[in-house]
Amino acid sequence: MNKEQIFEQIKKKESFLCVGLDTDIKKIPEHLHDYEDPIYEFNKAIIDATQQYCIAFKPNLAFYETEGVDGWKSFEKTVAYIKQRYPEQFVIADAKRGDIGNTSEMYARSFFGGLKLDAVTVAPYMGEDSVKPFLIYPNKWVILLALTSNKGSADFQLVKDEYGERLFEKVLRISQSWANDNEMMYVVGATQGELFKDVRKIVPNHFLLVPGVGAQGGSLEEVCKNGMNSNCGLLVNSSRGIIYVDNSESYARFAGDEAKKLQLEMKEMLRKYLK
Amino acid sequence: MNKEQIFEQIKKKESFLCVGLDTDIKKIPEHLHDYEDPIYEFNKAIIDATQQYCIAFKPNLAFYETEGVDGWKSFEKTVAYIKQRYPEQFVIADAKRGDIGNTSEMYARSFFGGLKLDAVTVAPYMGEDSVKPFLIYPNKWVILLALTSNKGSADFQLVKDEYGERLFEKVLRISQSWANDNEMMYVVGATQGELFKDVRKIVPNHFLLVPGVGAQGGSLEEVCKNGMNSNCGLLVNSSRGIIYVDNSESYARFAGDEAKKLQLEMKEMLRKYLK
Repeated sequence: MNKEQIFEQIKKKESFLCVGLDTDIKKIPEHLHDYEDPIYEFNKAIIDATQQYCIAFKPNLAFYETEGVDGWKSFEKTVAYIKQRYPEQFVIADAKRGDIGNTSEMYARSFFGGLKLDAVTVAPYMGEDSVKPFLIYPNKWVILLALTSNKGSADFQLVKDEYGERLFEKVLRISQSWANDNEMMYVVGATQGELFKDVRKIVPNHFLLVPGVGAQGGSLEEVCKNGMNSNCGLLVNSSRGIIYVDNSESYARFAGDEAKKLQLEMKEMLRKYLK
Repeated sequence: MNKEQIFEQIKKKESFLCVGLDTDIKKIPEHLHDYEDPIYEFNKAIIDATQQYCIAFKPNLAFYETEGVDGWKSFEKTVAYIKQRYPEQFVIADAKRGDIGNTSEMYARSFFGGLKLDAVTVAPYMGEDSVKPFLIYPNKWVILLALTSNKGSADFQLVKDEYGERLFEKVLRISQSWANDNEMMYVVGATQGELFKDVRKIVPNHFLLVPGVGAQGGSLEEVCKNGMNSNCGLLVNSSRGIIYVDNSESYARFAGDEAKKLQLEMKEMLRKYLK
């Protein structure tokens, strides 16, 4: 999927919502535990109920890995389900990987070779040769951590170098020589507010994956005001705020309603801020 | 396992070798493909043949994940095999994880709750709250990336801040307020040579996990000269240089011989540089 195709979906659905599948077996409705694979059952219903309001899904690997072999099965089945049933959806493995070359090659092979995901999140700390192996797959995306949504983002990402450039700015600037805006996106947390302006000074045309709206407290309007560009350029993720909004047998319907609410806000934002 | 117990093993075995289990199904001897789980068979024989010369094993998650569900099975069985058969061995999940708090909690639960590993490698880019969830497990270790062995380490890790402090130095300094030297180690690549002196100025007492001897070209003597402290303070990893030294049915014996060679060099290094 390329940038143009993503923008087509955004226009068609009037949405730039990404639904985060942070599926915790301890938080899903009780009745699902009667199924052989409760996590997969949960995900399927969430996907069916939200897909018309979103353009992307983002399973978070940690939540699957913690269940070991069974969790990996649920993850693989979930990805296959989305890709088969809703091939227009953009599917992101939120994995935050990154290692020396031969190891990153292996991770890339997992996500893009075997599993047919569209994108994977990667940490920049180890530099160019840890990121490049993910870039050899055509029409696949690296989503590089730049300015994350958590409090700890201030520990290192905001540190200024001797010329006054902050680390997240350096990551944005330098990584542009590794890949173009049809191969790379950046993670910028919704909680970063005004800093979206500084991000856009360096990467005006790239898509940004924006977590942190909802449970983490980021403002959708502020993100759009400071971060939207002529291709929208935003994939705004909500996980807990959608998938755990209800815990009854009707959980999926309520999740769909929440996704719809966000989609309607996004439609308004597109009208207001699409350049 | 605490620092003292690790040092006891080092003295007993006159070795500070960690054997990296970067088991690539494409590189293991042909005859193993007759087994139901070739990766596990390979690992078992490597572990049996090298365990008397090493004090730690480090499975690299990427190599297991790339085989999907089957790979996770091989990984879990490998960890269980080591822990059951050689409980004195220190087992490291080389995973380079790190995410927002609730997600890091999940990763920590995978490695320390379910799998009984002793340590996990973690990337520092997202700061304190991405690392802390790994630290709540008693007698378990976080091994934080500081100065990695690859070329890309220069992209960000060596960048100086406005006061002249390099990023890896800042990571070493700041992370000491998160955990002590019985809870945290640091990754410092063997290829970094002279920089070990600068690392030791900031963390004189911590253990360092040192990849990059062998295939990546780092010098064991230089690492020991600049990096060894009064508890040895080094776990030197070799992966490809041990496990792929031979491709015949006798692969494990040859791997054992390579591990022994390294152990003998390490014995010499301990005599020469243990303070």
